[in-house]
Amino acid sequence: MTNQQEQASTTALEALPLRDNLRGQSPYGAPQLEVQHLLNTNENTHPVPQVVVDAIGAAVLDAAASLNRYPDREFTELRQRLASYLGHGLTEDNIWAANGSNEVLQQILQAFGGPDRKILSFPPTYSMYPLLASGTNTEYIAGIRADDFTLSPESAAQQVKDTQPNIVFLCSPNNPTGTALGLDVVEAVYEASQEFNTIVVVDEAYEEFSLDTTKSALTLLDGRERLIISRTMSKAFALAGARVGYLATSPQVTDALRLVRLPYHLSAITQAAANAALQHVDVLLATVDEIKAQRNRIVDELRQMGLKPAVSDSNFVFFGWFEDAHAIWQGLLDRGVLIRDVGIPHHLRVTAGTEEETTAFLVALREVIGA
Amino acid sequence: MTNQQEQASTTALEALPLRDNLRGQSPYGAPQLEVQHLLNTNENTHPVPQVVVDAIGAAVLDAAASLNRYPDREFTELRQRLASYLGHGLTEDNIWAANGSNEVLQQILQAFGGPDRKILSFPPTYSMYPLLASGTNTEYIAGIRADDFTLSPESAAQQVKDTQPNIVFLCSPNNPTGTALGLDVVEAVYEASQEFNTIVVVDEAYEEFSLDTTKSALTLLDGRERLIISRTMSKAFALAGARVGYLATSPQVTDALRLVRLPYHLSAITQAAANAALQHVDVLLATVDEIKAQRNRIVDELRQMGLKPAVSDSNFVFFGWFEDAHAIWQGLLDRGVLIRDVGIPHHLRVTAGTEEETTAFLVALREVIGA
Repeated sequence: MTNQQEQASTTALEALPLRDNLRGQSPYGAPQLEVQHLLNTNENTHPVPQVVVDAIGAAVLDAAASLNRYPDREFTELRQRLASYLGHGLTEDNIWAANGSNEVLQQILQAFGGPDRKILSFPPTYSMYPLLASGTNTEYIAGIRADDFTLSPESAAQQVKDTQPNIVFLCSPNNPTGTALGLDVVEAVYEASQEFNTIVVVDEAYEEFSLDTTKSALTLLDGRERLIISRTMSKAFALAGARVGYLATSPQVTDALRLVRLPYHLSAITQAAANAALQHVDVLLATVDEIKAQRNRIVDELRQMGLKPAVSDSNFVFFGWFEDAHAIWQGLLDRGVLIRDVGIPHHLRVTAGTEEETTAFLVALREVIGA
Repeated sequence: MTNQQEQASTTALEALPLRDNLRGQSPYGAPQLEVQHLLNTNENTHPVPQVVVDAIGAAVLDAAASLNRYPDREFTELRQRLASYLGHGLTEDNIWAANGSNEVLQQILQAFGGPDRKILSFPPTYSMYPLLASGTNTEYIAGIRADDFTLSPESAAQQVKDTQPNIVFLCSPNNPTGTALGLDVVEAVYEASQEFNTIVVVDEAYEEFSLDTTKSALTLLDGRERLIISRTMSKAFALAGARVGYLATSPQVTDALRLVRLPYHLSAITQAAANAALQHVDVLLATVDEIKAQRNRIVDELRQMGLKPAVSDSNFVFFGWFEDAHAIWQGLLDRGVLIRDVGIPHHLRVTAGTEEETTAFLVALREVIGA
């Protein structure tokens, strides 16, 4: 759109009875550009393994014959398979799923947030959190991290006590910084929030890429019924296009989510495709080690260039420092490499792709910064 | 669950910080029972044609190879195909889609409803409307119909002026009564709501089953930018399991919905399946005439039994009068026929299925009422 067209479109939109908190906003989403190397949305850039492609095709072909009927509203097989994948003694009663983690998180906000309620999170973090809060009319409280973007148990707990939120979102590994929280932070937040009956969500979308020393908050679920661990099939499982997010929690929380989910929210096709993929977990996760190797390579080489990459437990690297980060982003785009300017001054974020993509990024970056 | 287990589960749920408007509620949804004849959820009971099954299977197999990437956030091809199906000079700029009509309607409420706003509808009507209102914290106003469940232009317009809603939902053909509204009702509501800048939604989920004399509100879209016509692929298209709802409206309204939709809300699999199906519209709609014939047969035979079926523009029939409708429902279930008790005293609703299913229903009903 030209600026003039954009102006005209905005004027017409403003004439509609839009909610006040939406006025002047733009739709969320990274640019979907035609670029050779797409390293901006933290997808798994390795192609889906052929055995999984075939399994999904066969499963959907089989399900298609019954598409005239509504799907299993309880998606029981999918919950069983996800419980089995996560382990830790979880059963289908602990599992919930929806069309992407965003819908899972939105349902949590619909059940436990909303008007006159508030959610606490700690920016810089996943940029959808304030939008999900706004979309459910929940007050978003931006907590504070240390200057190096870390969050200590003491600070997190104190901020919970000070703000008394109904919900806390902890992103670990954190997007966009890539670093996981210690479980002591989760424990401290949960304990501090006891008196406010707060729902504590640990968003582990990138957990499968964690460093070997990092532990999942799944190990904390037992005995903590207000704790929710959110996961996704979009990242390590290389199925971003299938839109399957899920969570593990107490059966009481999943019962609460049943009150706000739209009936039949997970299509029979989505259920069939996810069930088929989950029969090939080992194949799907085979690329994780390779991605972690490229992630570590990016961190090492950025350090050699004199840059400051954050510790990464994810499939991306957050790095600085640039006087004008957007100019660097543009220089990379001019060289066919699309990464993400997440709007944090002096910093950028790049997805760890295949070895070839990583090389293309590193070569282009050396050119741009003259290293 | 036993009553005791249900009690325990409810108690545990109540300990969570659930929103007040959800307390004591049960999850929405018709019973999913194992019964020979399922005529309770207004599905198209004819099997999906093999050519469509094959097309969906092939399209998803093709799409599966790229599932590691996020889908087209704008689902442009799907919007083009839906515009082409609807006709009336509509283009992709007029079209929006989501995971079932329920999500489409929820997005409308997120954009234009919410706290301190209200929606007017006219019960008995689609039972999800008040739940969608509650889920978005929008005040639900139950308008009034005549004793025979009809709604006149004058009455509807007056109720709009009296209640000044931000949104009106008109269900036409109406669920559960089955009867379409005259376009004069839609025109009167739109005109009366002009001064309140109200969004007027006509939910035409069952439009393809309408009587030949009934006209779609699509013919009213031109020049009415606050008007939305909602449709679905779940009913006439026989794709309830695929969860694809959509709407036609002004480009300004679709821009507003972009502000509240979750990014990538329609999976690459859903888009591929729907696009494949829409290449076989004629085949998919081939069962509509047969279903309408069975619908008319039900109406005729119920009249012969001395019952009072409503005029039906849909693939179901709403009928009474029974002293104890639930006993009739149970009697039919005992004979392997599941229909719907929609909670309106003295009335029941049955889906028009295949000729065989219709016969099974009519035979069972004659037995139950001793006709």
